[in-house]
Amino acid sequence: MKTRAAVAFEAKKPLEIVELDLEGPKSGEVLVEIMATGICHTDAYTLDGLDSEGLFPSVLGHEGAGIVREIGTGVTSVAVGDHVIPLYTPECRQCKSCLSQKTNLCTAIRATQGKGLMPDGTTRFSYKGQPIFHYMGCSTFSNFTVLPEIAVAKIRTDAPFDTSCYIGCGVTTGVGAVVHTAKVQPGDTVVVFGLGGIGLNVIQGAKLAGAGMIVGVDINPDREEWGRRFGMTHFANPKDPSVLGGDIVAHIVALTDGGADFTFDATGNTTVMRQALEACHRGWGTSIVIGVAEAGKEISTRPFQLVTGRNWRGTAFGGARGRTDTPKIVDWYMNGMIQIDPMITHRLTLDEINKGFDLMHAGESIRSVVIY
Amino acid sequence: MKTRAAVAFEAKKPLEIVELDLEGPKSGEVLVEIMATGICHTDAYTLDGLDSEGLFPSVLGHEGAGIVREIGTGVTSVAVGDHVIPLYTPECRQCKSCLSQKTNLCTAIRATQGKGLMPDGTTRFSYKGQPIFHYMGCSTFSNFTVLPEIAVAKIRTDAPFDTSCYIGCGVTTGVGAVVHTAKVQPGDTVVVFGLGGIGLNVIQGAKLAGAGMIVGVDINPDREEWGRRFGMTHFANPKDPSVLGGDIVAHIVALTDGGADFTFDATGNTTVMRQALEACHRGWGTSIVIGVAEAGKEISTRPFQLVTGRNWRGTAFGGARGRTDTPKIVDWYMNGMIQIDPMITHRLTLDEINKGFDLMHAGESIRSVVIY
Repeated sequence: MKTRAAVAFEAKKPLEIVELDLEGPKSGEVLVEIMATGICHTDAYTLDGLDSEGLFPSVLGHEGAGIVREIGTGVTSVAVGDHVIPLYTPECRQCKSCLSQKTNLCTAIRATQGKGLMPDGTTRFSYKGQPIFHYMGCSTFSNFTVLPEIAVAKIRTDAPFDTSCYIGCGVTTGVGAVVHTAKVQPGDTVVVFGLGGIGLNVIQGAKLAGAGMIVGVDINPDREEWGRRFGMTHFANPKDPSVLGGDIVAHIVALTDGGADFTFDATGNTTVMRQALEACHRGWGTSIVIGVAEAGKEISTRPFQLVTGRNWRGTAFGGARGRTDTPKIVDWYMNGMIQIDPMITHRLTLDEINKGFDLMHAGESIRSVVIY
Repeated sequence: MKTRAAVAFEAKKPLEIVELDLEGPKSGEVLVEIMATGICHTDAYTLDGLDSEGLFPSVLGHEGAGIVREIGTGVTSVAVGDHVIPLYTPECRQCKSCLSQKTNLCTAIRATQGKGLMPDGTTRFSYKGQPIFHYMGCSTFSNFTVLPEIAVAKIRTDAPFDTSCYIGCGVTTGVGAVVHTAKVQPGDTVVVFGLGGIGLNVIQGAKLAGAGMIVGVDINPDREEWGRRFGMTHFANPKDPSVLGGDIVAHIVALTDGGADFTFDATGNTTVMRQALEACHRGWGTSIVIGVAEAGKEISTRPFQLVTGRNWRGTAFGGARGRTDTPKIVDWYMNGMIQIDPMITHRLTLDEINKGFDLMHAGESIRSVVIY
């Protein structure tokens, strides 16, 4: 079959809208019509050539929602017509990681996914006979895409595609980091570094979990209003003269009476990751790295920070098990427990997709969504 | 009163055995006759001038056991004749940290303890009219010492002093890191870097907790036999040609089928701390820093290590609440659940104390104990 797609033919070049050939689903695979897809910083990270493992030509996009249009042999967990969210973190429920019940990082198809291929080692996309790589196992910048059965989460049919697609990455990453990874408890003090889309979702996750004080940190003063909209109780701008001695860590420690119970880095900046750790409370504070750092960058601190009881952790896809937890987050959204609509700042057609990247780079969007 | 003590008059000089003046216990304090004290690397770290906050002249020593000989006004939790272990990590049961029930790092007397003083801001020791500083709130290199009531753990009277003193630091630090901080579960895979006294106690803690595979790592091949004596099941010497490609991390990951559930650094070497983290299993492995690093040294890693589910933590005094948990560890020793006797490799008089430091520096002792 044919599908319209935005193809990244090479790094650092705009995406090109072309018609691709798409092979139908093989055994254990499903064909999904993508109805909407978000444009995420990770797509830009790859397109900008910052990911040393980025593959080209490829169909980027990993934050979508759509409808199953065809299923391969042996597929039992979804049927034609089901609404689904593609999962870049699949959930096979059979591998050592899934069975451990201690992580969401299913390893069933990790090797091929990292190579831009389906589990059988081939690609379904091609352009004029040339194979085109899949991306993060999703490739949602294509109107139709093929996914392994274990990489789709079946969701309720009344959830709008143009908002619930955001649950495919940003919402789950931020809310899940709080709920699944940190397991924030009522009354806990939470600090979020970076009030982009992920940071705002951390804030609403913290509010949902009943956090007491929710502090947002950003160098962009315009983000204060955004943070407060989702439950932020305090704002700190490291560049503001009111910050204690210009030291954001000392400022946060003073504001939180000794440090936060939980801090989250949603910047991807390794210097900020260190600040987030050191702003934790002595004895028990936990800092969670969400942001993806530039290739080659390292985090560091004095080991004394750990010996005196701070914990350094990370999260991917918010610690959510894709098929099990993602549909629940859709329910939370539909029940009004979390908000998504105000975060979707721009709605675009596929032809306008490069504009979405421009808006993100300019810091003018929270989330741009392409609607097919 | 008078007491014989080994005094550190200045850094990098041998201790001098002299007779000091000792003021009796003030309100909330107790006078303890130290019956035995271990010589720990931390004492050497301070004496060697490596601790930038080290104070001189002082009475070092923080790993003792003794008998309460006098109590100040208001002391209710111990009585004259009680056997006790001095606690460099006190337990007031009243401060924010104690009440959090999330850390053993009581902060009640932290400020004065760090300055080598009793909680009232003065010192009890003096030599020819010159004040002598306390050390880690203990100063067990003195036959008699004064301690805050909250800094002594009452223990059973049938425990021998010359072995149970080791519970005042090394045993509790190693065993507690496993039991209290890591909370190792039966069947877990444990890797210990550094098979000195702390590392051996991590091993026996792991055995006590029912760990499945217990891997010891040391560049000294003689330590393999020591490790096996306490429950180590596998040994790896990073300098051995059998280590996979000379890469101890890859070697451990292969040996443990993907990485350890828990790793412990008992070396104080920041390069090893990184290896310990990276030898953890993707998705859930936790690395615990026990060793004290050289001043100014930092740990670092790629944030990807955390984002893919490894946890970096630390422990001090094995996460043990001094007055609550230390007496239980004495019970474990007396019940044969853990061993101490074979670790006490040298017994010395106070006059021989400098020999104890020499043995430690030469790697010839597991633990030297001074018996008064």
